[in-house]
Amino acid sequence: MIEALLFDVFGTVVDWRTGVAREVEEFFAGSEHEVDSIAFADSWRAKYQPSMEEIRSGRRGYTVLDVLHRENLDATLAEFSLDDAVDDEGRSHLNRAWEKLPPWPDAVPGLEALHGRYLLAPCSNGSIAMMARLARFAGLPWDAIVGADIGRGYKPQAAVYTASAAALGLAPEQVMMVAAHNFDLAAAREAGLATAFVSRPDEYGDGPVGKPDIGPSDDWEAVVPDFLALAKHMAATE
Amino acid sequence: MIEALLFDVFGTVVDWRTGVAREVEEFFAGSEHEVDSIAFADSWRAKYQPSMEEIRSGRRGYTVLDVLHRENLDATLAEFSLDDAVDDEGRSHLNRAWEKLPPWPDAVPGLEALHGRYLLAPCSNGSIAMMARLARFAGLPWDAIVGADIGRGYKPQAAVYTASAAALGLAPEQVMMVAAHNFDLAAAREAGLATAFVSRPDEYGDGPVGKPDIGPSDDWEAVVPDFLALAKHMAATE
Repeated sequence: MIEALLFDVFGTVVDWRTGVAREVEEFFAGSEHEVDSIAFADSWRAKYQPSMEEIRSGRRGYTVLDVLHRENLDATLAEFSLDDAVDDEGRSHLNRAWEKLPPWPDAVPGLEALHGRYLLAPCSNGSIAMMARLARFAGLPWDAIVGADIGRGYKPQAAVYTASAAALGLAPEQVMMVAAHNFDLAAAREAGLATAFVSRPDEYGDGPVGKPDIGPSDDWEAVVPDFLALAKHMAATE
Repeated sequence: MIEALLFDVFGTVVDWRTGVAREVEEFFAGSEHEVDSIAFADSWRAKYQPSMEEIRSGRRGYTVLDVLHRENLDATLAEFSLDDAVDDEGRSHLNRAWEKLPPWPDAVPGLEALHGRYLLAPCSNGSIAMMARLARFAGLPWDAIVGADIGRGYKPQAAVYTASAAALGLAPEQVMMVAAHNFDLAAAREAGLATAFVSRPDEYGDGPVGKPDIGPSDDWEAVVPDFLALAKHMAATE
């Protein structure tokens, strides 16, 4: 019996690429700097997995994603020859781009349809601080925030899934992980959770960095095109 | 500049005594057992502080309040000679009384008035699991859940307040603790938070266990009769 649904957020609930690019574009609008905001977003995001890998490997202690994002922003600004263009306050502002991302069109109505029946929570690599502000911006009706800060590590580490279920007072098998990324679902299943795949073919727009998972790589418990279909699927399986 | 308001929950946001007594009454209604449900609630609650003190003192590792509540429920049932009257399933059901407590009448409208401007989160000794279900039951618009599970300890331990502020990405001085209990505010102030006292003279009804804090014991930053007055106070100080 599934009691709670946990959601990957970046890519699954919100469109990080469009959102970050928009913030970057707004930031440099009217300045002397011409910045390819989509390329900037892709370059910033490309540093995401390597920075978390330092922590997963044990080479670095648990550090919230806000800090990793800021370090990666500094490196991206240097790459784009913008080191002298943005002061500390500007960098803090830009770093908050990850708290101002648009939800995919079906995300909020889908979550609302699921909300009465299941506990809903993000199980993201984002911090509680980041997820709380993003939820306020995007109108996401979470019951709690779990994920990296609760597991003191980064997905796909098993502890993030199991500690998140435990924080909701549930066994892994009472929880379903919802994600647009097969690697996330594979790790959740390994940790004992049920799994739901949602297609997000537009996560990376037309490239050039990254590729979406077009379809499921395994026999996940649910495979749906969006959150509204997930709500229907869950209602039908009760 | 205050960015977030943290709330004590039992007694400050919700009326635990009436709520627990009602669940106890409903549970035994129609059974052969006549139970003084208010006395039962008071006796159960009387074991709350001693059970947390085991953890604060270091004699016992961090254990979620759900487990302490269950141990205290078992002891209370024994005291009331109800040991044979309630099976394990019944005890699990009764233990969920703490997730079904009525908010004080001003609590939800007051939180909603504060919601647009501040991050709102419980900083309770209740677990994330308990607080999430209570929020759903009572309609509490939290942005996140912090408190005991985040600090891995029990208020008034300083780490609960400081870790809760940090989980929201804030320094202690950017956070205000709201409570009906002076000891909670004294510890929050000691940890660097701003403080607001809310009167809840009916927390213990007409006794006999416990006494409410009728007034503030110190010069807290805000002293208000309810959450609607707190919203007005905060708007006036901006």
